[in-house]
Amino acid sequence: MRVALAQLNPLVGDLQGNAQRLLEAACTAAAQPPADPTGPLLLVTPELSLWGYPPRDLLLRPSLQAQQHALLDRLAAQLQQQAPQVSLLVGIAAPTGSAELPNLHNAIALLEDGQWRVVYRKQLLPSYDVFDERRYFAAGAEATVLTWPPQAERPLRLGLTLCEDLWVEEALAGQRLAGPDPIAALQHQQLDLLLNLSASPFSLGKLALRQQLAARAAARLGAAVVYVNQVGGNDELVFDGASFVMAPGGRVCAQLHCCSEQVLLLNPSQLHPEATPAPTVPGEQEQLFRALVLGVADYARKCGFRQMLLGLSGGIDSALVAVIATAAAGADRVQALLMPSPWSSAGSISDATALAQRLGLTTHTLPIAPLMQGFDQALEPALGGPPSGLAAENLQSRIRGTLLMALANQQGQLLLSTGNKSELAVGYCTLYGDMNGGLAVIGDLYKTTVFGLCDWLDSPAAEPCRRELGLPPQGELIGAAIRLKPPSAELRPGQKDSDSLPDYGVLDPLLKALIEEHQSPEALIDAGIDTQLAERMMGLLRRAEFKRRQAPPVLKVSRRAFGSGWRMPIAAG
Amino acid sequence: MRVALAQLNPLVGDLQGNAQRLLEAACTAAAQPPADPTGPLLLVTPELSLWGYPPRDLLLRPSLQAQQHALLDRLAAQLQQQAPQVSLLVGIAAPTGSAELPNLHNAIALLEDGQWRVVYRKQLLPSYDVFDERRYFAAGAEATVLTWPPQAERPLRLGLTLCEDLWVEEALAGQRLAGPDPIAALQHQQLDLLLNLSASPFSLGKLALRQQLAARAAARLGAAVVYVNQVGGNDELVFDGASFVMAPGGRVCAQLHCCSEQVLLLNPSQLHPEATPAPTVPGEQEQLFRALVLGVADYARKCGFRQMLLGLSGGIDSALVAVIATAAAGADRVQALLMPSPWSSAGSISDATALAQRLGLTTHTLPIAPLMQGFDQALEPALGGPPSGLAAENLQSRIRGTLLMALANQQGQLLLSTGNKSELAVGYCTLYGDMNGGLAVIGDLYKTTVFGLCDWLDSPAAEPCRRELGLPPQGELIGAAIRLKPPSAELRPGQKDSDSLPDYGVLDPLLKALIEEHQSPEALIDAGIDTQLAERMMGLLRRAEFKRRQAPPVLKVSRRAFGSGWRMPIAAG
Repeated sequence: MRVALAQLNPLVGDLQGNAQRLLEAACTAAAQPPADPTGPLLLVTPELSLWGYPPRDLLLRPSLQAQQHALLDRLAAQLQQQAPQVSLLVGIAAPTGSAELPNLHNAIALLEDGQWRVVYRKQLLPSYDVFDERRYFAAGAEATVLTWPPQAERPLRLGLTLCEDLWVEEALAGQRLAGPDPIAALQHQQLDLLLNLSASPFSLGKLALRQQLAARAAARLGAAVVYVNQVGGNDELVFDGASFVMAPGGRVCAQLHCCSEQVLLLNPSQLHPEATPAPTVPGEQEQLFRALVLGVADYARKCGFRQMLLGLSGGIDSALVAVIATAAAGADRVQALLMPSPWSSAGSISDATALAQRLGLTTHTLPIAPLMQGFDQALEPALGGPPSGLAAENLQSRIRGTLLMALANQQGQLLLSTGNKSELAVGYCTLYGDMNGGLAVIGDLYKTTVFGLCDWLDSPAAEPCRRELGLPPQGELIGAAIRLKPPSAELRPGQKDSDSLPDYGVLDPLLKALIEEHQSPEALIDAGIDTQLAERMMGLLRRAEFKRRQAPPVLKVSRRAFGSGWRMPIAAG
Repeated sequence: MRVALAQLNPLVGDLQGNAQRLLEAACTAAAQPPADPTGPLLLVTPELSLWGYPPRDLLLRPSLQAQQHALLDRLAAQLQQQAPQVSLLVGIAAPTGSAELPNLHNAIALLEDGQWRVVYRKQLLPSYDVFDERRYFAAGAEATVLTWPPQAERPLRLGLTLCEDLWVEEALAGQRLAGPDPIAALQHQQLDLLLNLSASPFSLGKLALRQQLAARAAARLGAAVVYVNQVGGNDELVFDGASFVMAPGGRVCAQLHCCSEQVLLLNPSQLHPEATPAPTVPGEQEQLFRALVLGVADYARKCGFRQMLLGLSGGIDSALVAVIATAAAGADRVQALLMPSPWSSAGSISDATALAQRLGLTTHTLPIAPLMQGFDQALEPALGGPPSGLAAENLQSRIRGTLLMALANQQGQLLLSTGNKSELAVGYCTLYGDMNGGLAVIGDLYKTTVFGLCDWLDSPAAEPCRRELGLPPQGELIGAAIRLKPPSAELRPGQKDSDSLPDYGVLDPLLKALIEEHQSPEALIDAGIDTQLAERMMGLLRRAEFKRRQAPPVLKVSRRAFGSGWRMPIAAG
């Protein structure tokens, strides 16, 4: 009676490919030492592992429903042939059997002995932040204890849960869905293990929170918790894996990788309270960096891009994105474009060039002054003169955005957008200009978070991670010249961000309260923040909504990112 | 005992302003003849009338919750002072009293005698298509019969419902939410009236469907139905009002305006089965046109724009948008830009100019050839030559988009995007080019729908509507030259849409099945559609997802529009 975990990286909606991945994971688990061709082996996979999470409106397609049924039949048969000792727990979307909406359950199917059946239906359905589960799913009403293997003299008693079912501790998670407590229903059931099949997206601090929730459940149930999380980037969401086994006493006794696939057959000692603690997970800066790299790599791969492009301004944001892209794709697949204007500083070119050399990226330099003049002339009949003020600044940004898109289109590259969250929040970014791109890589990092991550990347602490991800391991990567220069958009002579915004050390905590806590300026004023500043920033935040509506997907790494978890009206009072 | 309907146009999130609108509506109703300063009057307003629908994540702001309570206190007091005979039913977001999520009810408050109280909580919460109510709201569990006025000898028995509560007939609506049947719970309650406070967005055929549902409920209950719908454009959604009273026998005995605010005091005969039928509503083409005009006018007004801008290509799409904009804002507030390239046909300029003259719009003409050459030269160092193929075509579109944005920024105009749904579906549009704009006016109209609406606009049948909306009432408006020319993007010599797409008469029904029914190509093939064509179009539809993610809000006029009701992954298999 052995248990294995498979944290897999599915392609959303590719049921056939995902079924193949599940079969391969079963064969891999069965082959791991100590191999035992006859001893039963239970393989636990993530939530909705047949679909990839989140499938979103693909769940509404009648044909995929039919396909799922046929694929489960086939997968059960293949499993019996190729790894007959494996019982496989797969996340599926199970029809409720009613025509009333929603007509699906978020469910677990058990595949064994050439057959499959639904063994559990998720009880707590998140419909907050990025989650929309009540759009698709009806809640299950019953706790399930699976006794496995059925033919064993003393089978294991396994409690089944799916993701949110574990998030019942308001004191830890900060919120709690109305509904049953699925853990309470499993108490006094003499469980051997609690299984949780998850698709829990990365955000800073999330891994520790998951482990706290598991520890609490383990203590309540007196049973070890096997937590299996999806891994991989799916549009804006990055799933970091980092699956684990938590002993009843709250010790982590198995820890799977952050941000890569892994199939792990547990040895029996890993389910015991006295197990040796597992290796610790990376620190938060490394978790963040690996999540961003995975998010970029998977978005490109799953969209079919082999090459990436970005504009390099000599500033810290595009420098960080260049490093992430290089780690995600390799230097030979990343191209950088320098597009100086008459207002660009000397460092704009030299710092960008030096960075590209450190990373090994090819660059081209395309000065935009002639196009600025060209547009001034072209607009003259309509405006009676050249554009001025913000219109002129936006125009420079749009010339650059258009050059980047021309290259990306001609060369089949994925253009990466390099704006940060502070800019997106207050609207210090140009729609159809520097916002252009298929993916906003650091659009969920406040400027101060960007500084912190770049400081870490340039520190000795990052060396092992840099080496492992194929980056130059030693010496400065971003470089002090880039890290320490005062932020500037360089869209007019001598411009600095600090001309029109407070210091980022003041701005970012304020934005965080407005965005992540939905606080009002009034509440912040009560907390001692300057009235005028709080109201001005709230005004900027609201007025930039129309820009964010047209932004590329933003890789989510915080509690609340701009994107599907931020649903604000544009025309509002 | 009198009843009045107020179909109001709130500003989303402007609780204070909306409270003022509610107070004014109460005073208006009280002053309508026959005035009776002492006779009780019940004023029914739309769903969430204090917030404006949909408030979306504004509902998550703690400060707005507190503000709501204070505003209801004040509104109740003001009402007692200014219109003491009025009892007011207001749509509010009522706290559940629990910390568990969701912690609000979509509710009705009754304001009378200087006080207010929650009298009903919505039971059926839509979380499909554009609706996300289960993100914010917990379902109410009880039917409510309000006996009003309380002091009357024989008070009216009023059944209370909110929007979806009425949508319980699967045979009519095509779907049905799991949950209670709020109408069934009101049967055998000797109701005098069923009240339904709604915020039901416009789509083609929706008005007839609402009336069918009301007729069915009226028959089941043996009571008249008072249906009060919100009016106004709120981002992508257009609420058409068109509130009505339906007699128990299924006759419409009062019909409020389509697409404008109205407060109507019913005369007693309007609640009787033998009432004279109300004037009929406009035909479907006129409904569609008025909804689009309202959507544009309100988006501009609620975002603070007084002026609009669009590119005029000589094609039918931009011509239709020019007409809509003119009706929405007046000719003196709409500017049109002509941006011919070497590949533009002669008609491109002459047809656009003639249209602008018919509408009275000011135009400027900015040829783009010099900028095309400028970009070719600027890109040479990176590409080794000028861009070609699709990259070159996109570049032209982006030059135009950049010119339009420069003008819009400099002049403070709202740029209107002119692409249609067929193009958005298959990706025949350029991101950061012709997709640019604050609002995609006809992005939910298939090309064939565009043809149909333009034919109607040019027909004598449209004259009264054109006159009423301030358009030249007589003669051709779009013009045969524009209506009848073969569609072309004119991005290369001699290009026609039909070079790469099937005839729109073939394409559009196919797209409709793929989008609005979520059909698979296989299902369409079974229905007799060419295999290769169905699969090719499905491929185009999926590959264009990344463009639509960055599209401006699309005014929704169909059952399923691209926007918040279409939630597809980008990186998917």
